[in-house]
Amino acid sequence: MAGSTFGTIFKLTTFGESHGQAIGGIIEGCPAGLTIDLDFVQAELNRRRPGQNHLVTPRNEADQVQWLSGIKNGKTLGTPIGFLVFNTDQKPADYALNRSIYRPSHSDFVYEQKYQIRDENGGGRSSARETISRVVAGAIAQLLLKEWGIQIQAYTTQIGPYGLNAAPTPEPLWYPPASIEQSLVRCPDASVSHQMEQYIQDLQSKGDTTGGIITGLIQGVPAGLGEPVFDKLHADLGKAMLSINAVKGFEYGSGFKAATMLGSEHNDPFVISNNHITTSTNHSGGIQGGISNGSAIYFNVAFKPVSTIKLPQQSIDGLTNQVVEFTNTGRHDACVIPRAVPIVQAMAALVIADHYLRNKLVRL
Amino acid sequence: MAGSTFGTIFKLTTFGESHGQAIGGIIEGCPAGLTIDLDFVQAELNRRRPGQNHLVTPRNEADQVQWLSGIKNGKTLGTPIGFLVFNTDQKPADYALNRSIYRPSHSDFVYEQKYQIRDENGGGRSSARETISRVVAGAIAQLLLKEWGIQIQAYTTQIGPYGLNAAPTPEPLWYPPASIEQSLVRCPDASVSHQMEQYIQDLQSKGDTTGGIITGLIQGVPAGLGEPVFDKLHADLGKAMLSINAVKGFEYGSGFKAATMLGSEHNDPFVISNNHITTSTNHSGGIQGGISNGSAIYFNVAFKPVSTIKLPQQSIDGLTNQVVEFTNTGRHDACVIPRAVPIVQAMAALVIADHYLRNKLVRL
Amino acid sequence: MAGSTFGTIFKLTTFGESHGQAIGGIIEGCPAGLTIDLDFVQAELNRRRPGQNHLVTPRNEADQVQWLSGIKNGKTLGTPIGFLVFNTDQKPADYALNRSIYRPSHSDFVYEQKYQIRDENGGGRSSARETISRVVAGAIAQLLLKEWGIQIQAYTTQIGPYGLNAAPTPEPLWYPPASIEQSLVRCPDASVSHQMEQYIQDLQSKGDTTGGIITGLIQGVPAGLGEPVFDKLHADLGKAMLSINAVKGFEYGSGFKAATMLGSEHNDPFVISNNHITTSTNHSGGIQGGISNGSAIYFNVAFKPVSTIKLPQQSIDGLTNQVVEFTNTGRHDACVIPRAVPIVQAMAALVIADHYLRNKLVRL
Amino acid sequence: MAGSTFGTIFKLTTFGESHGQAIGGIIEGCPAGLTIDLDFVQAELNRRRPGQNHLVTPRNEADQVQWLSGIKNGKTLGTPIGFLVFNTDQKPADYALNRSIYRPSHSDFVYEQKYQIRDENGGGRSSARETISRVVAGAIAQLLLKEWGIQIQAYTTQIGPYGLNAAPTPEPLWYPPASIEQSLVRCPDASVSHQMEQYIQDLQSKGDTTGGIITGLIQGVPAGLGEPVFDKLHADLGKAMLSINAVKGFEYGSGFKAATMLGSEHNDPFVISNNHITTSTNHSGGIQGGISNGSAIYFNVAFKPVSTIKLPQQSIDGLTNQVVEFTNTGRHDACVIPRAVPIVQAMAALVIADHYLRNKLVRL
Repeated sequence: MAGSTFGTIFKLTTFGESHGQAIGGIIEGCPAGLTIDLDFVQAELNRRRPGQNHLVTPRNEADQVQWLSGIKNGKTLGTPIGFLVFNTDQKPADYALNRSIYRPSHSDFVYEQKYQIRDENGGGRSSARETISRVVAGAIAQLLLKEWGIQIQAYTTQIGPYGLNAAPTPEPLWYPPASIEQSLVRCPDASVSHQMEQYIQDLQSKGDTTGGIITGLIQGVPAGLGEPVFDKLHADLGKAMLSINAVKGFEYGSGFKAATMLGSEHNDPFVISNNHITTSTNHSGGIQGGISNGSAIYFNVAFKPVSTIKLPQQSIDGLTNQVVEFTNTGRHDACVIPRAVPIVQAMAALVIADHYLRNKLVRL
Repeated sequence: MAGSTFGTIFKLTTFGESHGQAIGGIIEGCPAGLTIDLDFVQAELNRRRPGQNHLVTPRNEADQVQWLSGIKNGKTLGTPIGFLVFNTDQKPADYALNRSIYRPSHSDFVYEQKYQIRDENGGGRSSARETISRVVAGAIAQLLLKEWGIQIQAYTTQIGPYGLNAAPTPEPLWYPPASIEQSLVRCPDASVSHQMEQYIQDLQSKGDTTGGIITGLIQGVPAGLGEPVFDKLHADLGKAMLSINAVKGFEYGSGFKAATMLGSEHNDPFVISNNHITTSTNHSGGIQGGISNGSAIYFNVAFKPVSTIKLPQQSIDGLTNQVVEFTNTGRHDACVIPRAVPIVQAMAALVIADHYLRNKLVRL
Repeated sequence: MAGSTFGTIFKLTTFGESHGQAIGGIIEGCPAGLTIDLDFVQAELNRRRPGQNHLVTPRNEADQVQWLSGIKNGKTLGTPIGFLVFNTDQKPADYALNRSIYRPSHSDFVYEQKYQIRDENGGGRSSARETISRVVAGAIAQLLLKEWGIQIQAYTTQIGPYGLNAAPTPEPLWYPPASIEQSLVRCPDASVSHQMEQYIQDLQSKGDTTGGIITGLIQGVPAGLGEPVFDKLHADLGKAMLSINAVKGFEYGSGFKAATMLGSEHNDPFVISNNHITTSTNHSGGIQGGISNGSAIYFNVAFKPVSTIKLPQQSIDGLTNQVVEFTNTGRHDACVIPRAVPIVQAMAALVIADHYLRNKLVRL
Repeated sequence: MAGSTFGTIFKLTTFGESHGQAIGGIIEGCPAGLTIDLDFVQAELNRRRPGQNHLVTPRNEADQVQWLSGIKNGKTLGTPIGFLVFNTDQKPADYALNRSIYRPSHSDFVYEQKYQIRDENGGGRSSARETISRVVAGAIAQLLLKEWGIQIQAYTTQIGPYGLNAAPTPEPLWYPPASIEQSLVRCPDASVSHQMEQYIQDLQSKGDTTGGIITGLIQGVPAGLGEPVFDKLHADLGKAMLSINAVKGFEYGSGFKAATMLGSEHNDPFVISNNHITTSTNHSGGIQGGISNGSAIYFNVAFKPVSTIKLPQQSIDGLTNQVVEFTNTGRHDACVIPRAVPIVQAMAALVIADHYLRNKLVRL
């Protein structure tokens, strides 16, 4: 019951602590016969990787996937896909200062409360390094979804005070992938991106950090995915996103705005377009009653600012139970949003792949 | 894989369509020896029930729980608790008009796409009547949590444009339960409640509907609940809430506001208070790295306006594939928020009870 | 984790104690659109029912299924199928004598050790009355399997010293169903059946009981069902059978006899017959490496003698911890085998239906 | 749903094909704070390893475990334990002959039917090499069980016609471990062991193979483990054993013999011994109604003869669909029993550890 497994049919189980030997996982339930583009998987991983550019943490981790099983001659065998990434750039010394101090809004304290063990170097299992496994599995899921005509996109829509107007009618725009990758913060609007970059650089020099919002879009999902009660499609998407480090909120379709809307403005009228039934607006976010309706699915994910700041903070030393003042010196991001974009995409892919497979069994 | 089960150890499986024979469920994993206050369970169910007052739907459903197993002499046996509520007030005629029209933002269309069957009367399995089972199981979970000193509260903080300032420092207020129950909309501030009531009455007369927000609070949770990776405590709370009918968003602690905050203002400094370690602010919402830290847990749940409005709407007739105009005549709420309060509470209880039990096994 | 759920996709969860209100369950994952022959389900239940004839316990329990959800106009909706059977013929007085005496080889003692509660009347959750739910769900599974051309048969092959030669080449015979039902002990060979009947009658008059063996056969299973590692098809069949009350052993194909065989005699040579690949012998029992090979699947299930005998026995009184002598007076079977035949069939159907659905997802 | 996960709380997920990169797994749910004796784990693995002595296959695979996560300073962290063993001694050439011939009673044919892919070299995922992961996880489970005073033993009781009288009263003997390890076939009776060794050597020279039986014993299990319905303790033990390669049958306690016994001889009378309640006989095999009763648990596991024989066999060539005659040349065991002993022990440990943890949650 340790909570390291995600999914019911297309299923990922992960292991690994940052600063341990390796990070990795097992993917169960991927159908046999899928061609795996290993370069695509590695490319997704590179998007998540530290040290990509001057805006993210300079820890330069190679993060090369090693494939252990389940793939042969470039195709899935139908058996579990085992994979790992060895941890190479471990510098526990960087964290020496913190050893017994509970870092504010980090998981040191709760981790110690839960397991009665303190894993001194970095965040152990709670480290965002664990998301490597998600990106690998999510990339495989995206290759599978491509076979079924489904595509996923994620991009940055808010960093601190700077936001992209993310909700044109009837739903957020699907951008050319290059416009996202050209931006150091993965915001497809160049001028907003520029403001965000400046803001992050500014915070870096001050030793402070910022939160932000990532928007996800899914195109090509057929009507019918999702289960009517607990495993509503958006409930599983929400859990997927909330399980990503630093996430504080999830909304889909009209989201929190729905709270102040009238039924008469919120309802999406059914219309016929190109000979098939669709809706003229998309407040539903492509999901009605927990089941996809064939329109684009979209959602927002809110991230808190990184907890590790390079400003003096007050806390408690767990050994002495005394109040102490300290300042972090480790290498950290001033904003995780750019590196979190591929993680959001990966988690969305895991959910949709799982539900696509589940949905194959609902009719005789 | 039909998604009608929630939880891993304290586990609820539900069955039942509105307008079928009965609604009910099986609770597995409730420890033996728990005294069940059957009146409390029924009282929670009555809070969810239609026909409570003039603001909610006049369908008067008795909703009396029948206990089938697992309880003897007022105590749990440790065996599965089977229960049901027979459907008594079925008036399919009320829905006659809609039979082949896809009601906008309802699940008729997607349900038919998924199962290739149209359940003509009401929403079938997608009906909010299914939440009866959640409230019953959630009430049992609340009785269990009480044994461990944990209490849950939920109340209305937004209906349309009218909101309660839900975030005083360091977290939303814990109100006297009576102040919530005295309000017809379950908003503990009498003057805000009055505005909300007026607003709903106004919409009723117009045939329109509104959305809203419910805030949940959990007190007495020990540090250590939640798992570090996929089953983070807030991820399971998020999924629980998003699985409730009409929910569009979930945030905990600082929530979406975190996106625009600085790390230096968001971090919760550890302090010592009454000889134990706590934090002076609570942007974390009682959860760090997915694990409870001993502070109060709080979260917001956004609901969309009810889809059934009594105004003329345009849609498609599924038999003819023609555009039609129609007007609903059934009995429906103008706002589900007041009746959803006990459901939010119930789902929170299911999550916390499950994680409390899971956490008993993490140390030797 | 209470262990009341069986299956992964076609999934049964049960509730109910004998002498409680009702016995029942929820079937999840049955595809939508299956025509349900309610009479067949009831007929299967009648085969399990006490009081069928003079050889079985005279408790006359009607065991009428009440359908609560998931079926409409004779077809499955794709939603959970809830059902129950009310307990009507409860006579706790019959058991009065035993109230605090641990009945030898019954579960009174272990149940009390586990839950610290003694359910005084009958065996509570451990009673074979729980198998009602299995027979109901198994009947639905059999209707589903019929759609796919798969049929299951079970019959008695051993009662005490009297046995049917169950292993002709290449596998046990598939008998005309009537030849099984004509036998009071469900043994298709009339002369062996007669010996068995005499033996049971003889034991009834002496107050003693006997064990036996049931053989199961499954025809029409396509090659490919079962998973290569833990969920081998025969491993799931074995668990299914061993979960039936009073079962002590399970073997498939050559079974225990394989221990003394040579590889050169045990291997099943592949041959071509009617233009498709099959084997000339069937020591594999239709399963190789945990995966069905298209031949008939067959297995044996060993049952212990009923624990409730009407002869004086020695035991411990749980209240006084003293040795006591006692004699049972309740109504009980001298041999459960005849009534267990439909249960074996039901459990086999649950396993095959689940694996058939799982196997739909293994290839792109 | 690929069936590569075993257990519910103490949970093992495995990956790896023989002749692929590596074999390994993830153990979830092992409590934090357990001291791991890495030498014990390796020693268990060495007992399973090919090339131990002249009776087993001469493939000399080092099988060194690499630990990837979850253990630090010799103690478990509470996080998933990742581990692997690289495949070093891959000689696909040995199998060249067979490439398109379906080896009789092997899984080539069914594997190809299921996945529509033929993994040409060796058995892929169906190879017994997968059991490395079970032995590693089972060794960790045994270390955990030792903390709770529970010990497991397994030994050979039958090879071909040579058997050890395995059922003295009231249950099979617990032997000094050395007496098992001194025997090349892991049969604790030196004279029977000698006969078995001779028999295997004889078969080796003839190119034939034999089956056998392994008996398992578990001591120190407290009363109360196991769940009353589907997850009966012996049902989970049975599934565990039947999931091991080449197993054809499982029985516990009186087993198949129970079929011919009378209730009056089979019932285990409760008695008081050393001030606690036990039974004077143990036909129950330490389990009543699926729940441990505090007595020793014992069971038998039947294995078929190895399918790979070095005698001419007839089969079908999958490419041409023609009957062919062929003779195996690869390196294989004439009898798997000696190497399967630690696997039986490992699987028993996984079941008991899981149920011990589950049982911690059944009472308030």
